Amino acid sequence: MQKIKFETDYQEGCHPKILELLSSSNLEQTSGYGVDSHTEHAKELIRKFIMRPESEVFFLVGGTQTNATVIKYFLNPCEGVISASTGHINVHESGAIEATGHKILTIPGREGLLYPEDLRKYLEDFYADPTFDHMVQPGLVYISFSSELGTLYTLNMLEKIRKVCDDYNLRLFIDGARLGVGLVSEANDVSIQDICRLSDAFYLGGTKNGALFGEAVVFPDPEKFNLRTFRTLIKQQGGLLAKGRLLGIQFEALFDEHLYLRNAIHANNQAMKIKKAFESANIPFLIESFTNQQFPILTSEQDKILSEKFSYELWQPLPDNKMAVRFCTSWATTDEAIEKLTQEIKNL
Amino acid sequence: MQKIKFETDYQEGCHPKILELLSSSNLEQTSGYGVDSHTEHAKELIRKFIMRPESEVFFLVGGTQTNATVIKYFLNPCEGVISASTGHINVHESGAIEATGHKILTIPGREGLLYPEDLRKYLEDFYADPTFDHMVQPGLVYISFSSELGTLYTLNMLEKIRKVCDDYNLRLFIDGARLGVGLVSEANDVSIQDICRLSDAFYLGGTKNGALFGEAVVFPDPEKFNLRTFRTLIKQQGGLLAKGRLLGIQFEALFDEHLYLRNAIHANNQAMKIKKAFESANIPFLIESFTNQQFPILTSEQDKILSEKFSYELWQPLPDNKMAVRFCTSWATTDEAIEKLTQEIKNL
Amino acid sequence: MQKIKFETDYQEGCHPKILELLSSSNLEQTSGYGVDSHTEHAKELIRKFIMRPESEVFFLVGGTQTNATVIKYFLNPCEGVISASTGHINVHESGAIEATGHKILTIPGREGLLYPEDLRKYLEDFYADPTFDHMVQPGLVYISFSSELGTLYTLNMLEKIRKVCDDYNLRLFIDGARLGVGLVSEANDVSIQDICRLSDAFYLGGTKNGALFGEAVVFPDPEKFNLRTFRTLIKQQGGLLAKGRLLGIQFEALFDEHLYLRNAIHANNQAMKIKKAFESANIPFLIESFTNQQFPILTSEQDKILSEKFSYELWQPLPDNKMAVRFCTSWATTDEAIEKLTQEIKNL
Amino acid sequence: MQKIKFETDYQEGCHPKILELLSSSNLEQTSGYGVDSHTEHAKELIRKFIMRPESEVFFLVGGTQTNATVIKYFLNPCEGVISASTGHINVHESGAIEATGHKILTIPGREGLLYPEDLRKYLEDFYADPTFDHMVQPGLVYISFSSELGTLYTLNMLEKIRKVCDDYNLRLFIDGARLGVGLVSEANDVSIQDICRLSDAFYLGGTKNGALFGEAVVFPDPEKFNLRTFRTLIKQQGGLLAKGRLLGIQFEALFDEHLYLRNAIHANNQAMKIKKAFESANIPFLIESFTNQQFPILTSEQDKILSEKFSYELWQPLPDNKMAVRFCTSWATTDEAIEKLTQEIKNL
Repeated sequence: MQKIKFETDYQEGCHPKILELLSSSNLEQTSGYGVDSHTEHAKELIRKFIMRPESEVFFLVGGTQTNATVIKYFLNPCEGVISASTGHINVHESGAIEATGHKILTIPGREGLLYPEDLRKYLEDFYADPTFDHMVQPGLVYISFSSELGTLYTLNMLEKIRKVCDDYNLRLFIDGARLGVGLVSEANDVSIQDICRLSDAFYLGGTKNGALFGEAVVFPDPEKFNLRTFRTLIKQQGGLLAKGRLLGIQFEALFDEHLYLRNAIHANNQAMKIKKAFESANIPFLIESFTNQQFPILTSEQDKILSEKFSYELWQPLPDNKMAVRFCTSWATTDEAIEKLTQEIKNL
Repeated sequence: MQKIKFETDYQEGCHPKILELLSSSNLEQTSGYGVDSHTEHAKELIRKFIMRPESEVFFLVGGTQTNATVIKYFLNPCEGVISASTGHINVHESGAIEATGHKILTIPGREGLLYPEDLRKYLEDFYADPTFDHMVQPGLVYISFSSELGTLYTLNMLEKIRKVCDDYNLRLFIDGARLGVGLVSEANDVSIQDICRLSDAFYLGGTKNGALFGEAVVFPDPEKFNLRTFRTLIKQQGGLLAKGRLLGIQFEALFDEHLYLRNAIHANNQAMKIKKAFESANIPFLIESFTNQQFPILTSEQDKILSEKFSYELWQPLPDNKMAVRFCTSWATTDEAIEKLTQEIKNL
Repeated sequence: MQKIKFETDYQEGCHPKILELLSSSNLEQTSGYGVDSHTEHAKELIRKFIMRPESEVFFLVGGTQTNATVIKYFLNPCEGVISASTGHINVHESGAIEATGHKILTIPGREGLLYPEDLRKYLEDFYADPTFDHMVQPGLVYISFSSELGTLYTLNMLEKIRKVCDDYNLRLFIDGARLGVGLVSEANDVSIQDICRLSDAFYLGGTKNGALFGEAVVFPDPEKFNLRTFRTLIKQQGGLLAKGRLLGIQFEALFDEHLYLRNAIHANNQAMKIKKAFESANIPFLIESFTNQQFPILTSEQDKILSEKFSYELWQPLPDNKMAVRFCTSWATTDEAIEKLTQEIKNL
Repeated sequence: MQKIKFETDYQEGCHPKILELLSSSNLEQTSGYGVDSHTEHAKELIRKFIMRPESEVFFLVGGTQTNATVIKYFLNPCEGVISASTGHINVHESGAIEATGHKILTIPGREGLLYPEDLRKYLEDFYADPTFDHMVQPGLVYISFSSELGTLYTLNMLEKIRKVCDDYNLRLFIDGARLGVGLVSEANDVSIQDICRLSDAFYLGGTKNGALFGEAVVFPDPEKFNLRTFRTLIKQQGGLLAKGRLLGIQFEALFDEHLYLRNAIHANNQAMKIKKAFESANIPFLIESFTNQQFPILTSEQDKILSEKFSYELWQPLPDNKMAVRFCTSWATTDEAIEKLTQEIKNL
């Protein structure tokens, strides 16, 4: 019997609506590289969703590629990107940022978040150092919403981070691989309009929210930047899909009738059931998350039992034979799977 | 009324068999990044197809990414890649190779092909120059089969190129974005086993032969190279798909029941009908091609008439108000479209 | 007996005045990295020489490094640098430009020069190509004054090149490794003020004009560019000398009492004597040069005789057992050496 | 009155012996780029000094350039370099390593040193992580001898680090910008033969030990690596001096009659006097160093007094209005300067 997987939020294909649209449009003839009506329509829908008719939207295939492309675009050759040490670009992207020639300037994160106070302190110290012009210059701040640990920036934190960026002439880029579950989380007070207002670029992640693949990069204020060559940069970084409409079609489906949000709501709802089940069983968490990633701390006995029927990620070994593990939910997590899991947790 | 498109070989979605398999597998749960049974099966099918059980197969999303990844992998920091000046990497990949730090060493192509004699001459001259160690060192030869102009290397040419590579300690990489139509062309005398025997790496292009996207890189003799970190390099270059099984599934479909070859045969058959139609109308060609790209030379009157109902690419403006244009066929080109086109050509 | 060398313009140490100043200042204590009074003074002298008090001057160690640093600074990630195919960056810098991630877009040079008409044609064709945004974008024009073949742009050509740059929003960078011999050549009609007025950056080469090493980069209009991080970029590219004053001291000596020009005048005078000697002997030239590089075409017999007592560079093998060779002069070329050579030429 | 400088070990010119040799050889004619008899002789002297006739020696201009070139040479595109967080490459080289495309994998240093236990732990954890192939692969270990904080690895530590490198298939590179003062320190038990035996490459720093500039990279076992293109890489990285003999001449002088060691001994002796003076005044140190860098902790009153007559570097602000500062000595530090300083310290 195959185990029920809670390993990641990309272990199934795509939402059936997307598959339908891919199928019904399959034999249409369109030009390549995103010059087609589906892509135009998808951009239009996104601009409506974020209420920014003036914004520019680009579609790329995957997250690593998206991060590298946007960061490379924003930085001059001497500049680096500031990230929490737990930032995805610093850990799990195989050096894609450094491969573009830029250093990642890390600041210890707190529960996956870059605190505005820590950011300001870092910058104060940096410019107080008389040798600062022998060092990589801070150029951009990278944060993830929701974070790699499922946590969320409050609106107040985001406002403060923006203020620091303004004070130090830094741009702000928000990795939105998991933006959907962040926006709809019960613990969230940040709106998509806030994201637009406070960031220089962000993306609406598709891969982890119901698409086969695809990330929609948004520049809310394109007037502020020269985007003339951004498409060429996407091509250079290997992110320009020949059959570009596949991205358009998927985001058409996602931003029609709020599928994007509904997928995220479903993922969070299922996650909250898991959260409650562990809480009821008095199992602690590495971190408190109100999004689709949950990090309970299991004893090795508990792990032994749960791992018989379910698979999940070992996140971090802990003292005393304990371990933090990660359970992920998604648009595709079934009630049946949740029921089986919560039942098993109850029996621990 | 929409024009019938002959612009590219990636203007439709994918072969229905692929869509079927994507649909039927959609809700399966698998691990990410290509660690799944579909991907394993696809690799197995490819190894069988090429009759190289010992070979290593990797899947990437697109061609530019694939070229950059393989070339970066093969070169040391001082080395460049030799290419015909018409090579795709030199023209249409937005500097993706240079972005990895490597120069493209161009040799004028002849009808899209790098002639072994020209290659040898280039290398003789290079090493005869007393300042050669102030220049980028040749490290790898890049050729496309079929070429960007639809032409084909003969087996004899490939053998000679390999010989030059051996004499000068160069690796040989074959861009197979259009490998299918090359292999099944009536003018071809090169087998897939020859490709395996003569190259150090090549790829079986999916995007232009019926897949939604995807390229299968093959290292026929993995023992010769340390491939331990190649997967990490794919990730670094943004080519590692989170839902990696999507690549596996597509190549499963393509290499089951020879769909890969059948798609290519269909594309070539349709192209040969176009070829004959232009020949019958005494319309000359920029180049004689026996694959899915045809390059007739039109007068501006002929272009005016044809472009009313059909779209195709302007390839090259020529003197006397003439122009070379490109007609592309694919697995998806219908008999109806061909009939309409050939009829119109007849009426010119 | 050692042969008399005419191979290069960097085969001796430095002008004695420089050595004197290095010696007399040797035990002074200064801060590192060019923050010292010698460096400040040298900058002041250069600003006076070019009559641009508002300009910014930076010192780097060598030419390859200087080219890579300035070009990297000017280009965004999608842009390439346009150069004559004979440009030093394209031939003899081991891929230093590509190592910064940028393609060199070559246009065939004519006698070492990039013709404004060829440049304009290239750009017209580039932007007429509908696929231009899949190609590396032109961002900067690189020319050498004097050129790698000893030739010179006329003022008219430079004005036209500037016009093209303005029309296409390109920056213009002049490699001045041999700027001195260009400025003082009898065939020259370009002033240093013209260079300032027409370029966005250029450098005054020291290595080939009497210094031990060192190149002075000038930005005539620093207001046009954000140079805040340029020093950091020099450091990143390995061009920031710890004992930075060594550069300051050398350029102090060179721009005091016009040593820079006097060195160049001496080099040209000696070269003109060689030129006349070959002309008198009815020996033709590959190219007519009025600067310190001369390219006579020798028969193998002539070469055999001359190479017994003199060393020079084989430049290019030619048909009929002939060869173009290069004779270089410099500030250090003695009258005695010239006499011996011209005598020997007379005897050919 | 100018303050007496103790800021750095590169605030004077060069040892008079070097200046003499530069002067006496100034008008010799030699080929460029290090193909000359001085350079050959210098290499021979170094091979004798290290007692490794089979080793390969290369000369580069400066340290940042040397580090970037060697590290780029050793790493494949997926690999990073492990360094103590205080390593020069991680802090003060403006991102030169990242500019070559490689991540610096930092481990917290202890008093400037990378402890072998910490290194092993890092590697154990790395390979225990199931997602390790999504991360930058460790390829090379970088350490500095003496360290950026003046401290020294014991032979035992070096042996252990080598063992870890062997166990994990890593290369070991020793930054020897301050190798001289390390070797001759009273606290040192590591010989140059140990350095050769335990490292894959290291350099003998010239800039900080009496040369105008220059670093001599040594590959003790050139058979283990393909160095055929290393010279080309030096050129690409901007480290190949046109008048290459300037490097040869300087190292000829340094390795004739043990000037290299004598310079270092002088620097250390002067530093030890400073050390004792602070100790006698009961002034504590940030770190105990037995080389030419001393890091006393001053109160702001003490700093106020000392900084009237002497300049030195502010190293690190500390609580309670204290600050760690750096005093540097070199081959050029006079007895007079030391006397004035020690007297002033006594009076504090």
